[in-house]
Amino acid sequence: MSTAKTNRRHETQIAADPALPTILITREFDASPERVFRAYTDPELVVQWLGPRRLTMKIDAYEARSGGSYRYVHREDDGTEYGFRGVFHEVRRDERIVQTFAFDGFPDGVSLETTVFEDLGGRTRVTTTSLMGSIEARDSMIRSGMQGGVREGHERLDELLAGRPSGDTA
Amino acid sequence: MSTAKTNRRHETQIAADPALPTILITREFDASPERVFRAYTDPELVVQWLGPRRLTMKIDAYEARSGGSYRYVHREDDGTEYGFRGVFHEVRRDERIVQTFAFDGFPDGVSLETTVFEDLGGRTRVTTTSLMGSIEARDSMIRSGMQGGVREGHERLDELLAGRPSGDTA
Repeated sequence: MSTAKTNRRHETQIAADPALPTILITREFDASPERVFRAYTDPELVVQWLGPRRLTMKIDAYEARSGGSYRYVHREDDGTEYGFRGVFHEVRRDERIVQTFAFDGFPDGVSLETTVFEDLGGRTRVTTTSLMGSIEARDSMIRSGMQGGVREGHERLDELLAGRPSGDTA
Repeated sequence: MSTAKTNRRHETQIAADPALPTILITREFDASPERVFRAYTDPELVVQWLGPRRLTMKIDAYEARSGGSYRYVHREDDGTEYGFRGVFHEVRRDERIVQTFAFDGFPDGVSLETTVFEDLGGRTRVTTTSLMGSIEARDSMIRSGMQGGVREGHERLDELLAGRPSGDTA
């Protein structure tokens, strides 16, 4: 397998729809849907990869089942904290997660996130669609710099799935 | 107060946004935000007004609090049932409800509904925004005939708030 091919396979694609208030995030992982789904739903695994490396993640709740709730905090070295929370509308094992998402600093800006796990034959394509209340809210989310954190989180998830350490020494 | 004015005050406005996949529903009620909010959150009241008169409503769960779930069934006289479910992302007393919504017959068509209660000085304006995943899904919801049921539900809520019976004899 060429390096170029490897890179493309592990590339996070983030697209803002020109007409809809959505962000579409697509990424492939070298693991089965079962393993990737578990990394998205087991809090002991989520805490190891979600978000950029420089932030420390603390999970208050992560009930990844239909009707469950979640809340977590990302913390900077200087102590600054960013809290996020939401509810799981549906968690369909190895297939699909539908959840709400809001940042504590802007609790009325609620988005609806749908994540689909697609079996590529031992590998998995994960597609997350974030639906927001307006094009402005969506553009503001893009401008917040979320893209770097999403990409870095996916790299950490690659490392976790490969059994490598996911800390900031990688 | 003229009849025309009374009618306008009790008119349900339903608008499909030309650019966004949303339905905006606006209605005023002759009661305080506290009373209207209670009618939207207390299952013993909800069951008396939500939906068209011809259907019988049965509530399996209605935990109107942040992180709570709900499920209810509307039944035709011939026994046909329509089930609906979702989760409450946030319930902010007398002010705001954010919840997911899905029809059992199309569980992947999840919408995000935000209901705001606005104090008009003893009266209340209720605005519900339904956000869907695509313009097509939104148009399909409009075509389903939901508008008649919404309007009739609001008339039943008028009757409930006025202390009149809300059954099909009204």
